[in-house]
Amino acid sequence: VEPVVAVSWSPDGRAVRIIDQRALPDQYVERDVSTVNEIRDCIRTLAVRGAPAIGVFAAMGIACVMQQHAELPREEFDHVLDASAERVRASRPTARNLGWAIDRLLAGARATSGDALGAAHVLRRTAEAIRAEDRDMCQRIGEHALTVLPNDAHVLTLCNTGALATAGIGTALAPLYLAHARGQRLHVYVCETRPLLQGSRLTAWELGRAGIPLTLLVDGAAPALLRSQRVDCILVGADRIAANGDVANKIGTYGLALSARHHGVPFYVAAPSSTIDGATASGGAIPIEQRDPNEVRAFRGASAAPADADAFNPAFDVTPQALISAIVTDRAVHRPPYDFSSVAA
Amino acid sequence: VEPVVAVSWSPDGRAVRIIDQRALPDQYVERDVSTVNEIRDCIRTLAVRGAPAIGVFAAMGIACVMQQHAELPREEFDHVLDASAERVRASRPTARNLGWAIDRLLAGARATSGDALGAAHVLRRTAEAIRAEDRDMCQRIGEHALTVLPNDAHVLTLCNTGALATAGIGTALAPLYLAHARGQRLHVYVCETRPLLQGSRLTAWELGRAGIPLTLLVDGAAPALLRSQRVDCILVGADRIAANGDVANKIGTYGLALSARHHGVPFYVAAPSSTIDGATASGGAIPIEQRDPNEVRAFRGASAAPADADAFNPAFDVTPQALISAIVTDRAVHRPPYDFSSVAA
Repeated sequence: VEPVVAVSWSPDGRAVRIIDQRALPDQYVERDVSTVNEIRDCIRTLAVRGAPAIGVFAAMGIACVMQQHAELPREEFDHVLDASAERVRASRPTARNLGWAIDRLLAGARATSGDALGAAHVLRRTAEAIRAEDRDMCQRIGEHALTVLPNDAHVLTLCNTGALATAGIGTALAPLYLAHARGQRLHVYVCETRPLLQGSRLTAWELGRAGIPLTLLVDGAAPALLRSQRVDCILVGADRIAANGDVANKIGTYGLALSARHHGVPFYVAAPSSTIDGATASGGAIPIEQRDPNEVRAFRGASAAPADADAFNPAFDVTPQALISAIVTDRAVHRPPYDFSSVAA
Repeated sequence: VEPVVAVSWSPDGRAVRIIDQRALPDQYVERDVSTVNEIRDCIRTLAVRGAPAIGVFAAMGIACVMQQHAELPREEFDHVLDASAERVRASRPTARNLGWAIDRLLAGARATSGDALGAAHVLRRTAEAIRAEDRDMCQRIGEHALTVLPNDAHVLTLCNTGALATAGIGTALAPLYLAHARGQRLHVYVCETRPLLQGSRLTAWELGRAGIPLTLLVDGAAPALLRSQRVDCILVGADRIAANGDVANKIGTYGLALSARHHGVPFYVAAPSSTIDGATASGGAIPIEQRDPNEVRAFRGASAAPADADAFNPAFDVTPQALISAIVTDRAVHRPPYDFSSVAA
């Protein structure tokens, strides 16, 4: 079974076709997106999520939007491009790849003189390159991460860092796809990942579809599982990696890292090098998105709390580099002390 | 506002009246229970939950059941009593108070000679004593725990350890009710407590009803909250306390204790002395209930995962005594090294 493709061009090339991840696992819905409002809405409501997939989707989406303006005078085209890019960039603050992909897209267009049609072609080619490179990066992350994975690995993971989160086979799930394809035994423990349950809804769905054995657990059960000595290592993704190796990732990651340290379980982060933010010295400077309290008070329409209850709902937390055994990128397995000066994109 | 009464006698005294906690916070439903099957069902499905409330409910419920058999010859009455007691005892394995309350109920009846009617009266008086003592114990736990609570306390808690979990004002929530009644400022951070959401459904409901300020969070967000230095202490309950001070409590407690230790936040357990199991040397010997995987795969009826996904669903975990700053009972604030030899019931 080939992993799913989370983001692709629509058949006529005028839109980006996505799997609407809000509907999984109950329904498999594809959606074609071709306006800035739709792109923003898909990113903010997590129809498309996962830092690499967001970057790829933003670039492809903006390219589609600008195709519609290819008849404009170049100066107007550039204005629309800048405004569109900034609106998409603002849709989620924490993921590093989003800003990285947009910067790269804009740089490509700016380096192109001539009319809007030519600039629009450059945007599309750049977006396609970002997509293809993300796919390749996933493969390389998987190969590097395989080197730290034991045989018959029992791996604990959080959130979704697989095909649904990237343009390829994922980041933290990439080595698991490769190990499975090579006939290695493995077992994946999947934290459900409240509030939006990307673990139980998405990771369980895509691993199950690929025939990889898995066991779900509520997030609070992870320390008890680690204590039972059934877990060889923890593998998670990253939304942004600071220059010192501090990692912003899905809320709950920090607690997993603390438990892993206590139990002597290796804790690995896997992410494309575009996740590294050389301009951010340490985790304290990473902006953390606070999301709607309703995500905590309910799930898919089922109320879980009094409707007026206050809620603390950060989408991410920061794991200090001292708790991370290694950071695996498409370039290398980085060990502490972390030095990304030759890697950061 | 007086705290709610989770368990009481029905007006005609022939049944136990409970608040059906499965329906909260959407609906407030009372139910009258008077058969062994109903008692077992209520305990197993968590219509009545919280270790102290389960013990009180079991004792009162068995007393009601046996009232219906008060015309039997004494020997037959005793057979029915033993069989009923064992069926109720087996409904949940981890909570210490359940077995404790049943043992006490049986001892009262066994010490009574004479006919079944007399024995039935003793059962009712014993059950009523267990209820009244639980209420008093809550008050005393609250007063002892108040001594460890700072002014303007910001407290993190898990699950529900309040009026809904006891016959009184709770265990870990008891000092918060007392502080609030005395006009002290406080703020309670409530972990939602997946899978069954006793934090967001029950604790948020009962604290909100009492006018105590609270903020909900998903369980995975607690370590990030502790890191923010907004929490003065963690207060949780206990389902069973081993002789060495190891504590079995709601799944997720152990992770909170690890995070608290890392951040230098005091971690307190509050429970009636009937929770202490002197016959169990340490936490490793406490039986841990594994519950239905469907609790993890769904969220109040909304599916959260592929229907065939395997799930690890222990209801409790064990926190080693080394991570516990103090255990507060109705008798005292116990500090390590724990010695309950004069306290255990």
